Amino acid sequence: MSMPLALRIAGIVLVGALASRAVAFDGTVEKKTFSMPSYVTVAGKTVPDVRVGYETYGTLNAAADNAIFVPHFFTGTSHAAGKYKPGDAAPGYWDAIIGSGKPIDTDKYFVVSADCLVNVNPRDPNVTTTGPATIDPQTGKPYGMRFPVVSYRDSVRVHKALLDSLGVKKLHAVIGASGGSIQAMEWAAVYPDFVERVVHVIGPGFEITPYVLEMVDVWTLPIRLDPRWNKGDYYGREEPVDGVAEALTIVTFTTRHYGWADKTFGYKWADATRDPAASMDNKFAISDTLDKGGAARARSADANSILYTARENQLYRLTDEEVKGMKARILFMPARSDLVFPPVLSERAAARYRAQGGVADVVVIEGEGGHLDGLLNIAPQGEAIRAFLAR
Amino acid sequence: MSMPLALRIAGIVLVGALASRAVAFDGTVEKKTFSMPSYVTVAGKTVPDVRVGYETYGTLNAAADNAIFVPHFFTGTSHAAGKYKPGDAAPGYWDAIIGSGKPIDTDKYFVVSADCLVNVNPRDPNVTTTGPATIDPQTGKPYGMRFPVVSYRDSVRVHKALLDSLGVKKLHAVIGASGGSIQAMEWAAVYPDFVERVVHVIGPGFEITPYVLEMVDVWTLPIRLDPRWNKGDYYGREEPVDGVAEALTIVTFTTRHYGWADKTFGYKWADATRDPAASMDNKFAISDTLDKGGAARARSADANSILYTARENQLYRLTDEEVKGMKARILFMPARSDLVFPPVLSERAAARYRAQGGVADVVVIEGEGGHLDGLLNIAPQGEAIRAFLAR
Repeated sequence: MSMPLALRIAGIVLVGALASRAVAFDGTVEKKTFSMPSYVTVAGKTVPDVRVGYETYGTLNAAADNAIFVPHFFTGTSHAAGKYKPGDAAPGYWDAIIGSGKPIDTDKYFVVSADCLVNVNPRDPNVTTTGPATIDPQTGKPYGMRFPVVSYRDSVRVHKALLDSLGVKKLHAVIGASGGSIQAMEWAAVYPDFVERVVHVIGPGFEITPYVLEMVDVWTLPIRLDPRWNKGDYYGREEPVDGVAEALTIVTFTTRHYGWADKTFGYKWADATRDPAASMDNKFAISDTLDKGGAARARSADANSILYTARENQLYRLTDEEVKGMKARILFMPARSDLVFPPVLSERAAARYRAQGGVADVVVIEGEGGHLDGLLNIAPQGEAIRAFLAR
Repeated sequence: MSMPLALRIAGIVLVGALASRAVAFDGTVEKKTFSMPSYVTVAGKTVPDVRVGYETYGTLNAAADNAIFVPHFFTGTSHAAGKYKPGDAAPGYWDAIIGSGKPIDTDKYFVVSADCLVNVNPRDPNVTTTGPATIDPQTGKPYGMRFPVVSYRDSVRVHKALLDSLGVKKLHAVIGASGGSIQAMEWAAVYPDFVERVVHVIGPGFEITPYVLEMVDVWTLPIRLDPRWNKGDYYGREEPVDGVAEALTIVTFTTRHYGWADKTFGYKWADATRDPAASMDNKFAISDTLDKGGAARARSADANSILYTARENQLYRLTDEEVKGMKARILFMPARSDLVFPPVLSERAAARYRAQGGVADVVVIEGEGGHLDGLLNIAPQGEAIRAFLAR
């Protein structure tokens, strides 16, 4: 073998390795923005200049059929995995299962996550969304409550345009938790030939339940009560941060479980020197922690966007025809202690899907963390997800 | 038999029948008031001129040992059975099981119910209570948040003084639901030789759970958010009725169950001509009904009294020694679909009580009504209560 040839071969190998190193997901994430000149909602309203943020992990293959889309939950964002920079306090919410060699293996799959329309955290610098806090180009002011009502289906249609722009020809799977599980099901209903698999984590099945329809309405009550909400017209003034903080405290309470409350807090006072029996000002640890958590989360949240996202959830209701038209294999993954979407809903939906000839599995996430086990305790079921994706 | 004798006998019979008719409970209730010149709370604060309303059904026997006390739940009152006048819209909340010939048989038992301290409905004309809405004789103004913190044990001690005043020597039973179940257990812990039986309906066992400690805190959030609450100083001004209404809406939501929401409301719009997908102003039936219910109940409720009653619940925690000192037979009666105090809590408490040599039964109220099945669906378990009282 002559030197030039050897060098040439080595060079090819080197280029290949470099190319691979350049595109494989190493845990560092870059936020990008997708934009559409305009989008017409399911209800027929036109929204100009729609923008949503997105992240990708891994590489699209030549056949463009190894993509997995990860829609986010109610208070979530498209930051599903990795870190923006090594010093970040925490990685994306599902980093335990998304990454190189992990169950949603970025060495094999091209994973995409995107911010929803009316995302509740428009002030998070890593969120890009179009919603009530967005400037209406016609008036130069935020839409406020003049923004059209949207459903999760609207987010899904915008996200489909994003995937088209990335050249994705087929979704190997859509995997989402809670509000994300709803979008995953919408994907399979609206684009039955595009979606091969759905992982429906802590979801309601094929429609929202009346109970959760009301639960999310309860979440919005403190916002509407806060006088600074001012019927949604607060931009540029004092904002209804107290109402938003209380809403987020109630979100945390309703998405947990009594087992979690026992284990995490017990009967502890917020301050060991201040007995709640002595003064109405003295609090218990659980209330103090949840109130502070709500206040902290309120900083990046927008009041109107919470109301719109609640409505997005309330409008989830696939028709019988839409369910019948679905082709995806579905993995239902409820959480044992979920008081929002209890496992029985997944069992029922799986039975219905099988009865119409569909393929459906149910794997339960064990634990006492409540609904949030689908986000925070997903790791033990990672291998079940890996196996489902390989089938 | 001479005529005079026959008449005399007839007369005796007649007098007996009249006497019986005069004292037996015919379903008509009279509200009375019990007062104490002063009461010293468990925490050592003196409250002058304490008054609580009460009702009695049936007659105390000569041995004064056939009394049954019925403490009320969080948003309840002492109106447990009967009507004040025949035209009343509804009888007391447990009229299905309290009355002549009913499981809590007023032909046999002398049933007493009394309003708690800090009862949440001081504006109900049939409620008498001492709490933050009461005029402080020292200032001539309502106490507001200057009223001392009280626990359910304080209500129980006031109610014991009431029973003493009525000549009751022994309680055949204390029977209460939810907050009333807590007081029933307090009775047995504080007066072990006075209480023979406890029926603990939809209760937590021997202590409040951290989860419900937080749940009742969540109930209070909208009140504290309402600017008209003004840190409790609102008497004689515009009152925080919106915050109270929202609090009561959340109370209803958290004390129900998804099965109830499905059956009662389904996915119905509040107005069949106003699609929630078309406008953020259009509501669903369940939200509309619960919001209106909250607003209606807010009329007789007092904001500060809700905060104090929440704290009463949070302070429920019998010591190990107190539980060990209890002598009453206990019937635990959880509701299958209770998301507040699920049946497992009753099972655990019964096991603990049996382990220390106590007598405990558990009978589950079946249904999908949630926590409120203990109030609204008690009738099917009436015979279990009757049998327990006869043992």
